[in-house]
This record gives sequence, structure tokens and C-alpha cells, in this order.
Amino acid sequence: MRELLEAVAAGEVSPAEAEAELAGYATGDAGRFDAARETRSGVPEAILADGKTAAEITALATTAVETTGRAIVTRVSEETAATVTGTVHEHHPDAAVAHDERAGVLVLRAAAFEAPDLDATVGVVTAGTSDAVPAGEAAAVVREMGATVERVDDVGVAGIARLLDRLDELRDRDVLIVAAGREGALPTVVAGLVDTPIIGLPVSSGYGHGGDGGAALSGMLQSCTALSVVNIGAGFTAGAQAGLIARRLDAARAD
Amino acid sequence: MRELLEAVAAGEVSPAEAEAELAGYATGDAGRFDAARETRSGVPEAILADGKTAAEITALATTAVETTGRAIVTRVSEETAATVTGTVHEHHPDAAVAHDERAGVLVLRAAAFEAPDLDATVGVVTAGTSDAVPAGEAAAVVREMGATVERVDDVGVAGIARLLDRLDELRDRDVLIVAAGREGALPTVVAGLVDTPIIGLPVSSGYGHGGDGGAALSGMLQSCTALSVVNIGAGFTAGAQAGLIARRLDAARAD
Amino acid sequence: MRELLEAVAAGEVSPAEAEAELAGYATGDAGRFDAARETRSGVPEAILADGKTAAEITALATTAVETTGRAIVTRVSEETAATVTGTVHEHHPDAAVAHDERAGVLVLRAAAFEAPDLDATVGVVTAGTSDAVPAGEAAAVVREMGATVERVDDVGVAGIARLLDRLDELRDRDVLIVAAGREGALPTVVAGLVDTPIIGLPVSSGYGHGGDGGAALSGMLQSCTALSVVNIGAGFTAGAQAGLIARRLDAARAD
Amino acid sequence: MRELLEAVAAGEVSPAEAEAELAGYATGDAGRFDAARETRSGVPEAILADGKTAAEITALATTAVETTGRAIVTRVSEETAATVTGTVHEHHPDAAVAHDERAGVLVLRAAAFEAPDLDATVGVVTAGTSDAVPAGEAAAVVREMGATVERVDDVGVAGIARLLDRLDELRDRDVLIVAAGREGALPTVVAGLVDTPIIGLPVSSGYGHGGDGGAALSGMLQSCTALSVVNIGAGFTAGAQAGLIARRLDAARAD
Amino acid sequence: MRELLEAVAAGEVSPAEAEAELAGYATGDAGRFDAARETRSGVPEAILADGKTAAEITALATTAVETTGRAIVTRVSEETAATVTGTVHEHHPDAAVAHDERAGVLVLRAAAFEAPDLDATVGVVTAGTSDAVPAGEAAAVVREMGATVERVDDVGVAGIARLLDRLDELRDRDVLIVAAGREGALPTVVAGLVDTPIIGLPVSSGYGHGGDGGAALSGMLQSCTALSVVNIGAGFTAGAQAGLIARRLDAARAD
Amino acid sequence: MRELLEAVAAGEVSPAEAEAELAGYATGDAGRFDAARETRSGVPEAILADGKTAAEITALATTAVETTGRAIVTRVSEETAATVTGTVHEHHPDAAVAHDERAGVLVLRAAAFEAPDLDATVGVVTAGTSDAVPAGEAAAVVREMGATVERVDDVGVAGIARLLDRLDELRDRDVLIVAAGREGALPTVVAGLVDTPIIGLPVSSGYGHGGDGGAALSGMLQSCTALSVVNIGAGFTAGAQAGLIARRLDAARAD
Amino acid sequence: MRELLEAVAAGEVSPAEAEAELAGYATGDAGRFDAARETRSGVPEAILADGKTAAEITALATTAVETTGRAIVTRVSEETAATVTGTVHEHHPDAAVAHDERAGVLVLRAAAFEAPDLDATVGVVTAGTSDAVPAGEAAAVVREMGATVERVDDVGVAGIARLLDRLDELRDRDVLIVAAGREGALPTVVAGLVDTPIIGLPVSSGYGHGGDGGAALSGMLQSCTALSVVNIGAGFTAGAQAGLIARRLDAARAD
Amino acid sequence: MRELLEAVAAGEVSPAEAEAELAGYATGDAGRFDAARETRSGVPEAILADGKTAAEITALATTAVETTGRAIVTRVSEETAATVTGTVHEHHPDAAVAHDERAGVLVLRAAAFEAPDLDATVGVVTAGTSDAVPAGEAAAVVREMGATVERVDDVGVAGIARLLDRLDELRDRDVLIVAAGREGALPTVVAGLVDTPIIGLPVSSGYGHGGDGGAALSGMLQSCTALSVVNIGAGFTAGAQAGLIARRLDAARAD
Repeated sequence: MRELLEAVAAGEVSPAEAEAELAGYATGDAGRFDAARETRSGVPEAILADGKTAAEITALATTAVETTGRAIVTRVSEETAATVTGTVHEHHPDAAVAHDERAGVLVLRAAAFEAPDLDATVGVVTAGTSDAVPAGEAAAVVREMGATVERVDDVGVAGIARLLDRLDELRDRDVLIVAAGREGALPTVVAGLVDTPIIGLPVSSGYGHGGDGGAALSGMLQSCTALSVVNIGAGFTAGAQAGLIARRLDAARAD
Repeated sequence: MRELLEAVAAGEVSPAEAEAELAGYATGDAGRFDAARETRSGVPEAILADGKTAAEITALATTAVETTGRAIVTRVSEETAATVTGTVHEHHPDAAVAHDERAGVLVLRAAAFEAPDLDATVGVVTAGTSDAVPAGEAAAVVREMGATVERVDDVGVAGIARLLDRLDELRDRDVLIVAAGREGALPTVVAGLVDTPIIGLPVSSGYGHGGDGGAALSGMLQSCTALSVVNIGAGFTAGAQAGLIARRLDAARAD
Repeated sequence: MRELLEAVAAGEVSPAEAEAELAGYATGDAGRFDAARETRSGVPEAILADGKTAAEITALATTAVETTGRAIVTRVSEETAATVTGTVHEHHPDAAVAHDERAGVLVLRAAAFEAPDLDATVGVVTAGTSDAVPAGEAAAVVREMGATVERVDDVGVAGIARLLDRLDELRDRDVLIVAAGREGALPTVVAGLVDTPIIGLPVSSGYGHGGDGGAALSGMLQSCTALSVVNIGAGFTAGAQAGLIARRLDAARAD
Repeated sequence: MRELLEAVAAGEVSPAEAEAELAGYATGDAGRFDAARETRSGVPEAILADGKTAAEITALATTAVETTGRAIVTRVSEETAATVTGTVHEHHPDAAVAHDERAGVLVLRAAAFEAPDLDATVGVVTAGTSDAVPAGEAAAVVREMGATVERVDDVGVAGIARLLDRLDELRDRDVLIVAAGREGALPTVVAGLVDTPIIGLPVSSGYGHGGDGGAALSGMLQSCTALSVVNIGAGFTAGAQAGLIARRLDAARAD
Repeated sequence: MRELLEAVAAGEVSPAEAEAELAGYATGDAGRFDAARETRSGVPEAILADGKTAAEITALATTAVETTGRAIVTRVSEETAATVTGTVHEHHPDAAVAHDERAGVLVLRAAAFEAPDLDATVGVVTAGTSDAVPAGEAAAVVREMGATVERVDDVGVAGIARLLDRLDELRDRDVLIVAAGREGALPTVVAGLVDTPIIGLPVSSGYGHGGDGGAALSGMLQSCTALSVVNIGAGFTAGAQAGLIARRLDAARAD
Repeated sequence: MRELLEAVAAGEVSPAEAEAELAGYATGDAGRFDAARETRSGVPEAILADGKTAAEITALATTAVETTGRAIVTRVSEETAATVTGTVHEHHPDAAVAHDERAGVLVLRAAAFEAPDLDATVGVVTAGTSDAVPAGEAAAVVREMGATVERVDDVGVAGIARLLDRLDELRDRDVLIVAAGREGALPTVVAGLVDTPIIGLPVSSGYGHGGDGGAALSGMLQSCTALSVVNIGAGFTAGAQAGLIARRLDAARAD
Repeated sequence: MRELLEAVAAGEVSPAEAEAELAGYATGDAGRFDAARETRSGVPEAILADGKTAAEITALATTAVETTGRAIVTRVSEETAATVTGTVHEHHPDAAVAHDERAGVLVLRAAAFEAPDLDATVGVVTAGTSDAVPAGEAAAVVREMGATVERVDDVGVAGIARLLDRLDELRDRDVLIVAAGREGALPTVVAGLVDTPIIGLPVSSGYGHGGDGGAALSGMLQSCTALSVVNIGAGFTAGAQAGLIARRLDAARAD
Repeated sequence: MRELLEAVAAGEVSPAEAEAELAGYATGDAGRFDAARETRSGVPEAILADGKTAAEITALATTAVETTGRAIVTRVSEETAATVTGTVHEHHPDAAVAHDERAGVLVLRAAAFEAPDLDATVGVVTAGTSDAVPAGEAAAVVREMGATVERVDDVGVAGIARLLDRLDELRDRDVLIVAAGREGALPTVVAGLVDTPIIGLPVSSGYGHGGDGGAALSGMLQSCTALSVVNIGAGFTAGAQAGLIARRLDAARAD
């Protein structure tokens, strides 16, 4: 600890980084950032942009880059992403930027950040165009946790031939995240055809009774297959759960 | 009318039958029986056994046989069916009996009753064993309205090959009633594969969230295919709607 | 297939049209368009404008015109309809345009498109002014599937004389779509009076408890008549189901 | 007060009756009976049998007869009614008994009880047989409050001619209580045809979605007519509200 | 009828007025106006501004003034009210205007209109400021039906002394409309104290669980007093029901 | 610890009691009993009889008596209470028994048990007879935690005079638990009149919409007074919360 | 009273202040202000800004300052707070202002106002940043009632070490208000560890099923610890309940 | 295939077994048994006893033993389990029986059946006694799929020390199934402490609002950790999903 404090005194280590190492979290203007989350629970801490100002997100993102080498911001608009990126670049001009505009995910990586790399592949499957946002969020999280992502899109059950054409691909993945809105039947149909563990991701894309994703959620919970489920639109959770399974597989393969 | 009243006076026509012909309904101890329903709306009046005593059902069934030549009793237990049949037979010893025990449907037909006969076929499809009761009720109603019924059972989406094997059969029907519980995905998958009009029949066969048929109902209402739907377990309604379509097709074919 | 590819090479057939014929769908910037839907399930593929940008709708509409000869866009605002029409006209200057502004339905037909023409009539009935949008959407779909549409408007149950005046008209239709908001009683009352198959279309037009269409939906599901139902505001589904029945009747009449 | 206490001392007035007169309520083994309710709020206190033992009901009924001259017991089974009647008769052998078995209402009146008599008529209307219980409860309360009850039964909207036949009767009543289960449309249809104030009484008589009376309740609340509503199965409340209106009319006519 | 048509030909009677007299409704650009509603059901037809354009409201209001002598517009914003008033005044410069801005009710009366005048008084009671809008709507309807309105405001149950101070006033009314939001207890407390018929009017004025008026509605439906209820915010319905009772009382007093 | 183990060896302390002291819980056949709960969280551990067999309850009760000197069993039927008491008495013949049959609470105290005694009084208030069970459960817990209980029963809001008569009593209590079913207005009315902290206890005692206690719960949550609330029927929780407040007051008074 | 009226005549006491003293409330343009609430129920009257105009809030705040010496405005935006403060300062230039912008609470105190001061400490605990608004509102109310507030922030259950570090602090408080959104588990975990009375404050901070605070509310109601609960986001209620307990403790300590 | 049919002819292979091998399913009196499910989707077909008669279960179990070598019956009562076991033993006297009475799971294995054996360990964790049934069902499925099960029981969040004591154990598992009723917080707390993939299993063990497992389900769906979830009480699904992950890990370790 003495060493760390001397490094702080010498300006080699920022106070935030030191606090994060010592206490597991770093305190800033916009609240506390849980820097130890990844070590403890295997899932990187992400910053949910919903309901935060650009200034708050920037502050948290800067702390994240400084303490863990990387900031992941979800549900972020294009304007806010630009603002955050600009300000973070003022202090960390060499930080790498990856921005998936459709999925609303912004990732900033410090130059020295070593991304994890897992020997495991997660399939991300969608029924239709309106599943793109949560599926994209799930894919981004999987990638940040180090697994390979393979997408299979537009294979909704209303035209089941498109799905049957791609069964081999689905069977080859280690885990599948299957997103679907409206009646949410796709994960059930896939789970009847392959022996891959599947995480159902219900999407809010309908209207009328059950159109807020409720029909898809209850349909997946009622599925007579071995499906586990996350909340409506919870791409981050689906991706993180898949990432944890990928980590276990990578460890098993490394033995 | 004079003629009718003279026939009553002569004992050739029962008062109930005469009242039914004149007023459209017959009044008895257990309430009023809507004898003109079939003429007016194309659907035979049925007696829902739920919440009625055997005596009430018997009274209504007797009135039905006397005024329309036929009684249809739904959701009836085996004991009650036996009691009703026994008592009706006391007055109408030559009435024919058809009793589907599994579906809980009892039909009594007077000797002189001429059953309708339509040139149309309705397919009744189930996902699994627990759909048998409402599907059987639907089938019984279709038959009583005069159409031919063809069953396709146990083709749930968890093993989709069983369904694909029988597509030609499904395409050949004039209308399909597709029953499914739990997540209720079967009607959607079928509707994506055939151009037959489909009536979705949600079944209460799960447990937990949405297990009372609510997940199946909302899933069918959210379906992105051209499905119409009836209430949870409403086999009678599904059968009657299919029967009305069959009547129109029969008329068209007769031209 | 050789022939088709040569036609592509010769510029006589567009790549999208060829892909659609071979694979059943065409892939573009805005996702995949299910060009074979009509052949397979009898219902033309429509583009739901809700939640899509004008550019995405234009791309999908262009693909639709090129592969199936027709684009149907639903729930489209006047501005977007103008933009889409303008851009499609750049490539297909002779495409015919039909735009029902109140119902928010835009139809574009290539010059060579042969519209289906069925010998069947669908009645579209409304309880009041606020049912106009979903009823108009239903009517548009019925027309695009080739059946004749007859409207009966403003016959809500609060003034039942208006309905009784038009019973003969309602009895003459092959199928009825009956739209109603608030308590949704109209389809039940009509179904008690005529022997036409009826599809109930619940509308979201109230306020307070059940005012989002929920009261109308549950009322139609509880109806003691032979009603089938679609989701709240699901004009497209109601129209497509009626269209499928009309196709069957047309085939029967053609025999 | 002195006089009253002397009457108690002399055994001419029971302690319960005296307590009721002084305090407005009488206390017994089974709780407190609100003897002053009728004076204060115009509605006689009734004993809801649900969830009480026969002993408790008997105790409360005895107190009621002693303090107000009458006991009204609702939702009472035939067995319990017999027990209660027997025990009350031990102390009050000349008490008159009125027992509506179908509606589950038992009324016991002391010999000296003077029933109220109002110059007003309340119509009680039902859609079908399953509405009989709450409608009967409503009718019993109206009668105990002194108004005349006229019943119009089995006029459900699925066969609207039966209703139209009896419009004049409905117009002649001072208030209407209209009971209906399933989709609950009857009060709306009646309210569109007559200018009588109508209280909607939703009944739990269906199954599936909304079958617990929820569809009928929300349908009546959504009605576009001037309907007021009571809770599902709340016959007592409907009858009491109609009784209060009848009291006002009686007073107006007496002027 | 001949006479009427001659009056039309002579320009003495407008075509709309003639159609209304003959058919019971008048047809215009914005739909059909139910001109005979007041005669038939005792309640004047009102124009709900929600979801209509100013042009549509103006058209309906003009028809209303021409056929029934009066237009009642509810839930109308100040801007729209001004526009409607201006345009109606172009054709009917001497029409009288009554505009309750807080309650959002606009009434226009032709010079020749004879307002009804009933010998009956309706009390309109509120728990707090947020009940003002539906209570004001209810009061406006009562007034247009001809009864006298007396307001008792700000007597919520959290400070019950304010209510007890005004009991005599409440007892003197012929009917009470009692509005309350949040837990909706006020109508129950009042109904325990007076013998006036009470219509509960639940208001949406809270937040969190039940804050959309649902807690107030279910509380009023559960009340152990003789309360009838209308939907959340349904001031028009409450007022119309009270008005119908007032009409009956007026007739009784006139005898 | 040495001492404790020696006592076990000497048979002076039971193994269960020793395990409880060392580990905070005791393990038996029927699961683990949280013997340290009272020390840690101030609330005695209770055994919920619902869903457990008499044998399981007896085992847990015996462990409780042995480790903490007292067993509290809630929601227990009379038969089970007798069985449990009998068996516990076999091993602890001098254990004192307190059984509130109406509230379903059984308390067994070892001879050496020293009951807590707090200088604080909790008022338990009910609206009517049907609130007796959860109110009795709450009272029992308060007593076991050592505070004095004062009951005020049958003061429902439908007859508010009964409540106003007893205001001084309510003001004198340190905390109030106010139970109410149906519309649940009583706690709100009381909280508007006194400055005592109040815990609302909703009761399931109605029928129809909101009759399962849901109306009472949402009404208490919507109350505009300073009420906190427990779940429907959660007498134990209400009593425990009141007991914790009483403990703090007792400590303050002891200073 | 004579004295008071003479003081009004002499201009020493404002009419509002006099009315408040005599009647318990003061009437202004924006409704009635319950000036006696604090005396009667121990909780200061607050002005909920939601749904009121700046003018109305200013009027009520001025009345509050004049009659009770203090105005508390909750859920107020920064702009409105500035307007209100400006206008109140015109008449009361020496009024002290306390504005918590994050919690949206504005407090204005007349120069002569004597703030209450209690010998009691309330802990306000949050799981994360999104709990800040209701927690801040709760803290403000506690402070205005005179108790000391201690905050413990960002101790959500996903990183339970942060919570365990601060247990002693939590044990030392007299009452705890524990705010939590999403699954709302924090109050349960804390209540298992300390013997302080805890008020659970559910927060609306999620998305999907249960994301409006419903999951947190039902989780707290289901807690197996001795938790009482307020509505979603009801910081005022939680603070007021804690304040009432603090008042009792202060009185006990003063003895 | 020739070979197979010859074996049938020779009586070496039963017709059921042959049909299962050829068609993937075997048809019997009680419906169709999906014998190929394990091959196709990795999950053994189980027979849900709920809603089936002992005869039906026996028929399906016999088919299962004959075609797949093993029958798994879930939610089976002790009586039915005895009946089924007895009858199956008549034909297969050497079948091994494993019956977990508490979890209601019965497994019958033919003598020749080779159970799968995976190099993977699944932890099954419960909060309390009432979680035993679904947790036991989950454990049984995991075992039948070949993984090792380790139980950690009674570590509910109300006494968090019990959980912290066993963290290392939890970290060592490959997957965790965490069951919890009431507020369902346990999986969230565990997921914040370990990096193992966790499947939340909500249990119906409360009463009042959310007591049917709804609070636990919504709490787990709202968890801010990387949890996936199955339906309320769906032990089979949780076990099967864990089993599929175990299969993947076993394969990875075998490489």
C-alpha cells in the first residue's frame, strides 16, 4: 500500500485509480463507480446513460477509464456519445473508441487496456429488425467480456424456413442469446431444435395487449423447453450471463 | 298460427315447441331456452353445464330436444351426463346419444332430427395432450353444425418436425382451429406456413406467471400472422366461428 | 434458374427480384423483405412504419415494388408517405399510388402489377368516429387481397335503432369486421342478429379503467356469441383474416 | 333517558334495545351491531353471512330483531338460514320469516315491525340465468327499503328482440338495476333506449380472460351512456342505492 | 313531414335540423351527431374534444347548435374553445357562450334555446384542489340538464372537521356527486353520515402504485356504504346520472 | 466457549442450545431455526405454521424453546396447536402456554424464560369483525416483544362517530397499528386526527374487484397522511415494526 | 378572539393568519391551505408542486409563510422554485430560503419562525444514485420536523461489502429510511442485520417488467423482516413517518 | 431399418422402441412420447404428473422406459408414484427406482440404461425450507443429465452471515441455481459476490400482494446483476438449463 501511495504522491497513479485499488470503488461527482465489479462478479461495470446528464456520464466514464482501463456506456444517444467521447479524449487522447450507434453502446479503452480474449463463441439471434437494439447491446457486452459473437438475424417464426436453413450454425455456438418481440416464440422453436443453452431476450415491439414486451416475456417463461430468460429489453444482462458461461468454457478449454 | 294452436290442442305439438316457434324461445323451470338462436345467428344454442344442477340441465335439455330436435350440453361431468341422458330418455326413448367424455360434450338428438350436412372440412390441431378438452369441444360444435372434422394432434413447436410432416394435410382444410397452451406459439408457426384461415384457441395448461392461459392468449394476440383468437378454453366459440365459415363455403359450393 | 440469372445479367430482372424468386426474400439496407409471404400464407407482406425511419421505409417499399409488384405501408404519417412516394417514383415513375390518409395506409403498385380480384364481400362496421383508423386499415388490407369492402359506420349500441336499420346489409356480407372501442359491445349485438362470421376489432378510445382498449378486448373475448377477436387496434390482422376467408369463398364459387 | 332506563328496569325494553337507542349500536358476543345505520344513512344494516359461523349470525340477527325490529342476512346458505331462523324463533316465536333461497337472503321481522312503504318502483333486469343471485339480493334490499320491485329477466343482448319487446315496461320504472355477466353490455344497450337512471351490476359468470366479472365491470365503467356502477356481485349495494333514490322520490311525491 | 320539407325548401329550417328531426341524427363532415339522444335517453349529446381537431369540433358544434339549439364540448383546451366559439359565432352571432376554463367545458346556446329548469339540487363535493376538473365537468352537465348545483370543496378526510361542519348542507341535497383522488375515501365517509344517494367520482391525482386513479376506483367499489361509482375522471357520466335522478324528482314534485 | 462445551458435556446445556449460542442458529429435522434473530434484529423468530406439518412445527418449536426459551407459532389451527403443545409438554412439562385461538397464535415459554417488559404502549385498532385475525396476530407479537397492547375495535369509517368518541385514547398510544379491509380508509382518517405514528395493516375481507385486500393496500399506499404500510394480512410484520419502535422508546425513557 | 380581531383591525395580524388560527385553514386563490395540520397530526403541510402553476404555488407558499411561518414545496423544478422564491421575497424580504435542487424541495422560513429541534437521529440510506431524489425529499422532511439526518449512500446489495462496512453507523440511528429501486432488496438485507425500525422506500428506477417501482414495492411488502413500507417514490411520507417517531423519542428523552 | 424391423419381428425390440427410433416419438394410449427429445435438444423428456391420471402416467412411463431406457416423472404424489412404480415393475422387474418424495420426482431406469456422467458440478442454493420442492426438482434433473449436484440450503438474506460463510463453496461450482421465494433477493446478493453463472428460480411461498411468486419473479428480472431467470416454481427448467451448460463444460474438459 505504501508503494501505491508513493506512486500517487509521485503523480504516477491518479487518486481515483488508487482509491479503486484500495477500496474497490472510486468516488466522483456523479456518484461512486464500482471498479472492482469485474474482479468480484466477472461482469464489467457499465454506465447506463438513461436518466443521467452528459456531464455525469462523462465523469463516470473518465473514472472508469482511469481505474479499470475501459468505460462501457449503454443506452446512449448519438449526441451524448459524441460529447462524452470528446471530453474523455481531452484527458486520454489515445483512448480507442468503439461506438455501435444502433445499439446505443459506446466503449472507450485506454491505450494500455488489455482486452480479455476467450475461446468461446456466443450466437446472437433475432426474429426481426425491431430486435436489433437489445440484441446489439447483448453482443457488445459479450465482446467486451472477450467471447466471439456470431449473429443470425431475421429468422422469425412466421417464415420458419429461414430458421431451418441455419440450424447447423446455431448448433455450433457455445451459448445462444435469442431475442424476439411480439409473441416471443423464436427461442422456444430454436430450443426444440438444438442442444445449446439458450437465453431468451424478450423485446418490446408490439402494440395492444401484451405489446410492451409482456407477451414475449410470459411466452418465454411458459416455454416447455429449457430456456432461461432475462427482463424485457435487458440486452446487457443477457450478454453478461452468456459472457460468464463463456468464461467458464474458456477456463475448461485452457485446462 | 291457428294451425299451430290446433296442433297443440290436439296434442300433436307440445306447448314448448309451439312457444318456441311463435316467440323464438321456450320458458321452463330452469329459465328460458333460446330456440331460435340457430335460425337467427347460425349457431345452435348449447347448455353450459358449469354452475347448473343436473335438474336444471335436464329441464333445459328436454326443452331443447322438444323445440329444436337436439340438445348440446358442454362442460358436463360423466355423472351428470348419465343422469341427464336417463331422464331425457324417459320422455324420448328413441333419442340418439353422442357423448364425448374427454371433451365433456353430450349431444341428444330426437329421432326425427335432421342433422345439417355441409360440404366443408375444419382441421382441429393441438400442441399436446393438455389441449384435448377445448379442442374436443370445438370439434363437437363443428360436427353439430354439419362440417367434417379432421384432427391433427401432438404437433407442438418444441419438436417442429412432427408439424412439418403434416403440412399438406393442414393446407387442405377450409379452416383451422389451432389449440395451444403455455406459450401458445403453435398457431403462429402454422399460420406462417399455410394460407388457410386460422382461429387460435389458447389453453390454460401451465403454472407460474401466465400459466392460466394468459401467456398463450397474449402470444396469439401479438402474433405477426393473420390469426384471429377466442378466449382461453373457449372451444365452443372457436368451433362455432369455424362452423359459420363452413356454412358460407357450403353455400358457395352449392351455387 | 439459368434463365432467371441470364435475365439478371441482361438487366431484364433486378437482382432483388431474382433473389426474391430464388430464396423467398430480398435483402436490403433496412433488413430482409419477406417476398414469398403472400404465396406461402396468402397474406401480402406489409411494412409497419411505426419505429422505422423514412429512409428504411423507402428502401423496403422499393424492394417490395421490385419483387412483388406492390408495397403496402401501414401506420404511416402524411409526411413520411409523401417522402416515400417521391423516392419510389424516382425509380418507378409509373407506379400507381393509393393513400388513405385517415387510416395511415399507403399502397404503391408497379405498372405491371395485377391486383387480385375475389368474388367475395367483406363488411367493415364501426361504432363511432374513433374507430375510423383501425377500421380503415382493415378495409385497405381486404381490398389489397382482392375482396370488395362495404362500410357501415356510426352504428354504436348507445343508439341501437341505427344498427337495426341496416341489418339486411350486414346479413348480405360474406364476413364482417366489427370495430368498437370503450365497452366494445357492438360485435356481440351484431353477432346475435346475423349468421355471418364476425371478427371483433377492439379499439383504444376511452380513458380511465380499461380505456386503453382493454375493456373492449375483454368484452369481445367474453362475448356469448360466436365471435373471434384480434388485438387492440390490429386492423391489419382483422383485414388479413377476412381476406383469407374471402379467398376460400372465391375459390369455392369458382368451382 | 330516565324513562328508557326505567323501562329496562321494568323488563319492558331489553338492554340491547336500550343501548341501541342511546349509543346507536348494540354490543354482543359476535361484535357490534350498527342499529342506527338506517336512521343515519337511510340503508338498513345487513349481516353478511360469508365468513361468519351460524352462532355469530344468530347472535347478530337476534340483536338486530331486538333493536331495529328486523334482521337482514345476505349470502346465507340454506342450512345456516334454517339454524338461524330456528334459534331466533325460540326467543321471538312470532317473528315473520322471508327467505329467498336462490338469492341467499333471509329476512326476519318482529311482530311489531312496521315495514317502510314507498311510492316508487325499481326495475331489476337480468341478462340471463347466472345473474339471478346478485339480482335477487338487490331486489330483496329494495323491497326491505319499501319500494316496489318489478323484474325483467333473460333479456341478454345476444337476442335483442326480447329486450325491445319490453321497453315500455323499462321506461315506466323510477330506477333500473341492470345485472349482466360476461361482456356486461346489457346496461349500456338499455341506457341508450330509456331515460331512467340505471345502476349497472356486473356479475362473475364467465371463464378465461375477464371471466371473474372483470370484463363486465370494465365494460360498464367504459359505457358511453350515463351509467353508474357497483362492484362485481354487489347486489346489496345496487339495491341500497336504488332504495335511497326511491326514498327521495317518495318524499317528493308526498309533498 | 311535408310541412317540414316545405320549411326546408323555404329556407326556414336548415337541412341538418330537418334530418335530425326525421332520422334522429345529422350527418356532417366530422361524422354523425346524435341529435335525438336527449329525447331518447334524457342526456344531452356532448362532443368530447379529446382526439378531435378544432375543425371537427367546430363542425359538430355547429350541427349541434342547429339541430338541438345547444352544443356542449368537454375536455377542450382554451385555444380550441376560442377557435370553436369564433367560427360558430360567424353563423350564429347571437349564440350565448358559457366557458368553464378550469373544467374544460364549453357550452354554446342558440338565441332561441330554452334551457331545461328542474326543481332539484345536486351537491358536488371535492376532497381537494386536484379534483376540480372532473368535478367541474360534472357540475356543468348537471346545470345543462337543468338542476341546481351546490359546491362543497376541500373537505378531504385528512382533516375531517371541515367535512363535519358542512353535514347539514350535504343532507339537504337531492343527490351528491363526491369526487376524490388518491385513496378515494371521501364518498365512503360522507355516505356513512347522510342518507342522500351518492355517486362516487374517482380522480387520477396520485403517483406510484394505484396513483392513476386505480386506488380511488377500487376503494369506492369496495365501500361498505350504498355508493354507486363511475369511471376514473368520468365527470360527464356522474353529472348525467345525477341529472337523470333530478329529472325524476322534478317530475315527482310537479305532480 | 470452553465453558459452554463443558456444560454440554455435563448435560447442563443441550447441544441445540450450544449450537445456537455459537453459530446463531440450530439445525434440526425440520430445517434451521434462526436462534440469534432477536439479538441481531430485535424481532423474535416465529414459526409460520402455513405449509408445515404438525411434526415439523413441533420440531421447530422444541428447538425454539430449548435455544431461546420461547416458541411463537403463527397461523396455526386449533388441532395443530393442541398437538404441538402436547408434544412440547412431554419434554418441557412446565412450559407455559398462551394460545389466542381467534388469531391463530400459540406461544410456549420455558419456565426459566424472562419475558421482556417495555415501558411503551401500542394501540391496535380495527374497523370491523373481519379484521380480528391479523389484528390479533399483531397484538400477540407486540406483547411478546414486551410492550403493552390496547385494543380499539369496530370503529370503521361508515359510522365515524364511534371513532371520534375514542380519539383521546388513540392520541395516548406510542404507536398505532390500524387494520382495515375493503376500502381501507380507517388508517387515513385516524392519521388526520392524531399525531401518533401509524402502521396501516390492510385486510382481505371483500369480494369483487380489489376484494382480496388489494383495494385496502393501494388505498393505504395512496393515503395523503404520514402512514407506513405492511402487506395484506401481515399482522406479524406490523406487530414487529411497532415492537421495534416500542423498544427504542423504552430505552429512551430508561435513560 | 376579540383580541385577535382587534389585532387584524390594527393591521398587526394578517387576515389569513387570523383565519388560520380561528378555523384551522386559510382560504386563498389557489384553494385552501391546511394551516392546522402540524398541530393536529404532527406533520407540516407541504405544497406538492406537481400539477400546479407557479402562480398557484406562490399563492399557497405565501399563505403558508404567513400562517405557519414556513412553506415547504416538494417536487418543484428549478425555474418554478426561483419564481416562487422571488415573489415571496417581495412580501417577506427577510424570509430564509433552503433549496435542495436535486431532491426538488424548497423551504421558505419567515424571520420569526422557530424551527423544531428534536433529540433524535434518522438515517437515510440509498442503494444507488437513482434513489437520490426520493431519499433527498425524505431527508428534507425529517429535517423540517426537527430531527437530525445522517446519510449512508451507494450501499446497494450488488456489492454487499460496502454495506457491511457501515453497520455500526446504521445501528446507531433511531430510525432508518432505506430507499432502493429495481429489485428493492436493500431494506431487507439491512433489517436482517440491525434492530433499528426501518421504513422501506421503493424507487422507480428500472425498465421492463416491474421497472416502474412495482418490483421494489412488492419485494419490500414480501420481506420476511419487520419492514414497513411507503408508496413508490413517496419520500415525503417516509420522512414524515420517521419524523413522528423522532418526536415520540424526543419527548421520551425529555422526560 | 431392415435390421430394426427384423429385430421387431423377432421380438428382440418392442414396437414402441422401433417407432421411437424411426420416427422420434412413440404413440400410446395416453398420447405421444417424444423419445428423441434428449438427442435433439439435450434435455430428457419428462412426464409432468399434474393433471394426468395414474393410468396415463403409467402408460407414458412404460413407453419412456422402453424407448429411452428411463422415465422421469415430476410433481407426482406419493400414492401415484407407488402405483406407477408397481405397474412398471410388472413389465420391467429389474428397473431401478429413485424417488425423491419431497421434490415429487420419480425416476425409473431400465437395467441396461447407461446414465450420463458429466465432469461438471451444479450448486443448488435455497433461501429457506419453502424452497425445497422446486430446488429438489432442479437437482433431480441436473443429476439425470449427469452432472454432480451440491446443495447449499437455508442461506436466506435475512441472516446474511450464513451466506458469507459459504462463499468459497459457491465460487467453486460451474453453475448455480438459486431458489428464493417472498422478495427473491438471494440470487442478486449471491451474484454480487461470485463470478459463477446463476439461474434464478423464483418460488411461490408468500401471501398477500406478490405472494404467489410474482414479487420474487419481478425482483429477479429487475436484478442489476447478470442473472437469468426461469418461471415461478420451474425447477425442471432451471435444472435443464444448468444441465445444458454442464454438458458444454464436460465436452470442453474432455477435449
